[in-house]
Amino acid sequence: MGRCINHPDRETRFMCMKHNIYLCEECIQCRDPEIYCKFRSSCPIWYMDKRAGKAAAGDLPGEFKVVFQPDNKEVTVTEGSTLLDAAIAGDIPLNASCNGKGSCGKCKLVLVSGEGISKNTPLLTDREKADHYVLACQTTVHSDIVARIPEETLERKLKIAGMGQAVTDRMKGLVTDITPMLTHYPLTLATPTLDDSISDLDRLLRCLTRKGCDTSRMSMGLKVMRDLASAIRHEDWKVNAAVIKKRSSSEIVAVTPGNSEMPSLGLAVDIGTTSIVVYLVDISDGTVLAATSGHNRQAACGDDVINRIVCAEKDGVKKLSRMGLSTINGLINEAIDSAAVDRKSIDNVVLSGNTTMIHLLLGIEPRYIRREPYIPSVSSFPVLKAGNVGLKVNPAGAVFVMPGPAGYVGGDIVSGLIYTGFHREEPLTLFIDVGTNGEIVLGNNEWLMTASCSAGPAFEGGGIRWGMRAEEGAIEKVTIDPDTLAPTYSVVGDVAPRGICGSGMIDLLSEMFLTGIIQPTGSFNVDDHPRITKDGDETAYILAFAHETAVDKDILFLKSDIDNLIRSKGAVYAGFKVLLNQMGMDFSMVDRLIITGGFGQYLDLEKAVTIGLLPDIERSKFQYLGNSSIGGAYMALLSETYRKEAIDICNRMTYVDFSSNNQFMDEFTSAMFLPHTDLNAFPSITQKN
Amino acid sequence: MGRCINHPDRETRFMCMKHNIYLCEECIQCRDPEIYCKFRSSCPIWYMDKRAGKAAAGDLPGEFKVVFQPDNKEVTVTEGSTLLDAAIAGDIPLNASCNGKGSCGKCKLVLVSGEGISKNTPLLTDREKADHYVLACQTTVHSDIVARIPEETLERKLKIAGMGQAVTDRMKGLVTDITPMLTHYPLTLATPTLDDSISDLDRLLRCLTRKGCDTSRMSMGLKVMRDLASAIRHEDWKVNAAVIKKRSSSEIVAVTPGNSEMPSLGLAVDIGTTSIVVYLVDISDGTVLAATSGHNRQAACGDDVINRIVCAEKDGVKKLSRMGLSTINGLINEAIDSAAVDRKSIDNVVLSGNTTMIHLLLGIEPRYIRREPYIPSVSSFPVLKAGNVGLKVNPAGAVFVMPGPAGYVGGDIVSGLIYTGFHREEPLTLFIDVGTNGEIVLGNNEWLMTASCSAGPAFEGGGIRWGMRAEEGAIEKVTIDPDTLAPTYSVVGDVAPRGICGSGMIDLLSEMFLTGIIQPTGSFNVDDHPRITKDGDETAYILAFAHETAVDKDILFLKSDIDNLIRSKGAVYAGFKVLLNQMGMDFSMVDRLIITGGFGQYLDLEKAVTIGLLPDIERSKFQYLGNSSIGGAYMALLSETYRKEAIDICNRMTYVDFSSNNQFMDEFTSAMFLPHTDLNAFPSITQKN
Repeated sequence: MGRCINHPDRETRFMCMKHNIYLCEECIQCRDPEIYCKFRSSCPIWYMDKRAGKAAAGDLPGEFKVVFQPDNKEVTVTEGSTLLDAAIAGDIPLNASCNGKGSCGKCKLVLVSGEGISKNTPLLTDREKADHYVLACQTTVHSDIVARIPEETLERKLKIAGMGQAVTDRMKGLVTDITPMLTHYPLTLATPTLDDSISDLDRLLRCLTRKGCDTSRMSMGLKVMRDLASAIRHEDWKVNAAVIKKRSSSEIVAVTPGNSEMPSLGLAVDIGTTSIVVYLVDISDGTVLAATSGHNRQAACGDDVINRIVCAEKDGVKKLSRMGLSTINGLINEAIDSAAVDRKSIDNVVLSGNTTMIHLLLGIEPRYIRREPYIPSVSSFPVLKAGNVGLKVNPAGAVFVMPGPAGYVGGDIVSGLIYTGFHREEPLTLFIDVGTNGEIVLGNNEWLMTASCSAGPAFEGGGIRWGMRAEEGAIEKVTIDPDTLAPTYSVVGDVAPRGICGSGMIDLLSEMFLTGIIQPTGSFNVDDHPRITKDGDETAYILAFAHETAVDKDILFLKSDIDNLIRSKGAVYAGFKVLLNQMGMDFSMVDRLIITGGFGQYLDLEKAVTIGLLPDIERSKFQYLGNSSIGGAYMALLSETYRKEAIDICNRMTYVDFSSNNQFMDEFTSAMFLPHTDLNAFPSITQKN
Repeated sequence: MGRCINHPDRETRFMCMKHNIYLCEECIQCRDPEIYCKFRSSCPIWYMDKRAGKAAAGDLPGEFKVVFQPDNKEVTVTEGSTLLDAAIAGDIPLNASCNGKGSCGKCKLVLVSGEGISKNTPLLTDREKADHYVLACQTTVHSDIVARIPEETLERKLKIAGMGQAVTDRMKGLVTDITPMLTHYPLTLATPTLDDSISDLDRLLRCLTRKGCDTSRMSMGLKVMRDLASAIRHEDWKVNAAVIKKRSSSEIVAVTPGNSEMPSLGLAVDIGTTSIVVYLVDISDGTVLAATSGHNRQAACGDDVINRIVCAEKDGVKKLSRMGLSTINGLINEAIDSAAVDRKSIDNVVLSGNTTMIHLLLGIEPRYIRREPYIPSVSSFPVLKAGNVGLKVNPAGAVFVMPGPAGYVGGDIVSGLIYTGFHREEPLTLFIDVGTNGEIVLGNNEWLMTASCSAGPAFEGGGIRWGMRAEEGAIEKVTIDPDTLAPTYSVVGDVAPRGICGSGMIDLLSEMFLTGIIQPTGSFNVDDHPRITKDGDETAYILAFAHETAVDKDILFLKSDIDNLIRSKGAVYAGFKVLLNQMGMDFSMVDRLIITGGFGQYLDLEKAVTIGLLPDIERSKFQYLGNSSIGGAYMALLSETYRKEAIDICNRMTYVDFSSNNQFMDEFTSAMFLPHTDLNAFPSITQKN
């Protein structure tokens, strides 16, 4: 028995040995070629009924059980599958940043019993190897196995910046002109007579027109037409018509008996590469009824968009689509449970995400995004139906996808602009979203330029040995005593630390620089000190000793981590410079600098200037906004003004490509220094040092 | 083994004993609730593999085979099913005008062997009973049965007026402004560069705009977006985009690699209650490549729209929809075979039919059409997709449904107007379509009034003992020698006669009246004559003696047939009068009288005046047009002008309801006389008599 890959709440005995996945009976019988061709026609589906103690398809060669502790979840795989395959098949949230390449070392498991063959890896210490640690992606299954997921490998509840009551309160009242895509019209139709014998549909349209609905460009599907006669007669000519207003036409998507007020709920969804946030909103007044967030399950296919695209090319974009949908649908379930609302009432949705995330979620070919000249398939979308997208809400519900101007500047940035509103105002603004990419926008109400500076996932924990997202156990604030070189830190959730998140890394790098532990180049100045150690050949700073931690190991900050972080901050700063240069401007002309992204709640802007991530300008010009993508999605959910604005922003933005930009390469090289090679650009930092 | 009810080309062993139908494996596994709920979840589907000689579901109580001669088609049914049920399940074309009520007497079979229990019926003669004749609908199955379909019960190839080469030639050139709904745009897209990095979709839209396509209101489905990237790169940025222009927006329905010219074919379909006509048209120049026609298979559920609606209420509208679709799809197959074209190239379709036929075909609830105040569900349709409708052509193809102004004045009439064009011209025109209803339009380029006069199916053979459609074996022309009272007749296909069609009946009634065989009331004047006989209590005229016929029985014209015909012609004439009265007009003001309908090719207008079906006005004002519905459908298929005109006609028409109109009842009563009670209205006929 296993759980259906499309419906994790269903146990099933149908398993595909080729894909190592389970499908429930509904999926097996499903005629959707995207499900059944892939998982049924072309595959040997073995009918296994473990409860009956027999395999219906006869002897199954080399099929083994993997039990994952601590939850004792059991997954059956064929011989030779990796433990990571097993975890993905069982929907077990393992951290696997590098998409199974064996290069990140994050998918550690402890082999409790059974036979697994592991490739040799430098990413496990000798002590770890002695303790039966293996990398899930490098270990194949050759018997029944019991594996324990250690503390540091388990994914935890995310701490999403701006998810508190304060923010949902701030959301409420942000939009006053409430004009959702899908509107319910409660109607009382005139009873037909011989003198008024127009068709049911014309009667409905006439009544809608009288209610102020523009019916001149109205369409409807066959289902609505088929059910219309009984729907309007069921409660004596009282009906509720659900109408989706699209860009240039409208569609009646449902007509239901009775004309009492229908609750209308909406979802604003921010689809991050790392984490996904869902707001459940009462459309009538904008109240946020629930806010949930979780790790994007696609993370098992890699940390960054490039790895995700590679995975989609290899395994098909449908796999990634399913993973994304299953994350979102899980979050929707949580939100529905928490707010105790009816799923069918959710009939407006806005999706905001970077271009790759949107392609993957909608099952659109993403491969050309990662190849020069970096072309997305679709950047602007018609209003879609929730059922077609695969969202488990009212299937007739309207889905607006935030348009994105380029392959590496997506709808999440457009959403961010809507939330900040600087494109409506005069002051010159520099906007940066430090996610896995680092998208920059420069402009005001007259012009907008945008670029993506490939900052990499360091600030989100990627490529950093003990890096992690801003979730429970992440060190998010650090100071270092200049005398003892001992750190003081605070941890998300006030628990023993398990790693370090973006804001913590910025603090740490800044403090190591200011206390002289490292040089402006990032090299270590100090070597003979209890806090300084070696990890293999690499020098490292001990941020937390094993006994202080939840993982019973020293949490280290390595030379390679420092180099990664400097590369990331250098790319962002270089991006700022080049965009300004393009306009013949410099930092002094910037009136406002807005920074958003998944750093955690306590980004210390001063320290971000110290390491040269942000320019050394008047601190009052800085503004840190947390997740602006969800904010813009929320606004577009409620109001047509902002949906139109999104399309308008896209059309106004001029995209600058840095990948082939020599000036960017020069500026990047100059910025690979703490704070920068041009110290004149950082007078306040030079002073401190 | 049997044939799938949805896919007659597939043999299958899955049969539903409750519905007496077969379904193929695809349908059994189909998740469409309209198919599988009805035929799977709720039914005992017995898995029967006759080849293996066993019934997988165990003993099947009371299951019998019925073999229909002469084709020896075998159908398996449960005990107690009627032979008509078996014929419907086996898709065997029996004539069953009254929908199994046992009142029309047309579904005669000869029981060759086996046990059937027949209810007593006055509609079989003693000789027929002695010869083992039974009515299929009145006979239940209680053993394996072999039944022979006699000559007079078999449905034959229709003779559709205007299907010859002459008409298809006339069609060609009728429309010069060729603007189909779905247009193919062969495009060469600009290869993307870093400086021109808009998305694939925007690139496509830009190119379409340059080709003169209005892309400002363009939408597309997820499938198009999903396949776009590979489609445009497959043949080096050369693609063909298929765009459907709708009333107020457009939709890209397919993007395929390569930009060579795509053949585009269209179908004009006239869905008559009795017969269905399909024209296969080359969209590029309007050539009619093939014209096919056949009996509407719904005829097994009754001759007229009321019986069809009753059947839909009883068995579900889906059953009627399937029957209609299977007829059309069969005709499409014939047309494709005959023209040797690719099914996928058919991507424009126009459907023209009366309001009930369109409701049934599209699966839209029809029940309120037959109940006062006679409300159709839908009278005007958005452009549909062929795949959604169920037509076996390119599933992305566009389907335009001719709009109909009322429950009893449908799109076929609007189509007829388009073909005649009188609504564009000044002369006052009276238009009548004598099908099973008798729809009338009066008007010109300034105004249009319309009504339906419930003429009944007599002119199409319904309710007439030896009445039949204008198909092979139908007597279509009759003269009677005033001295001998012997008839001379001509038969469709120059074969021995099997019955009499509409034009033959009009001739016959007129001749019987002029030769004094009957009185103006319809009563027989003559009784002692070799041509006059009794059928039970009824007097009848012997139109053909048994030895002259193909059915080896006397072909009679009974007193009740005469009464039916007089009622029908009276209703039409009353309709004319009342519409004219409504406008304060009389027949002298009519400049033109256009008559269309399924009479057969040789409607004698003079004789139609003689019986009082048509008014006694100058004969040069008469025009007989055959099937005008298919003509209008053809024109709308080719040109947007006529599709817009159809909607315009609907909006312009004023519908007059006769069902509650006292004036109509008075006029109808006055018209129940040959030619009329008011002989002054028929001076030329009075003179003749």
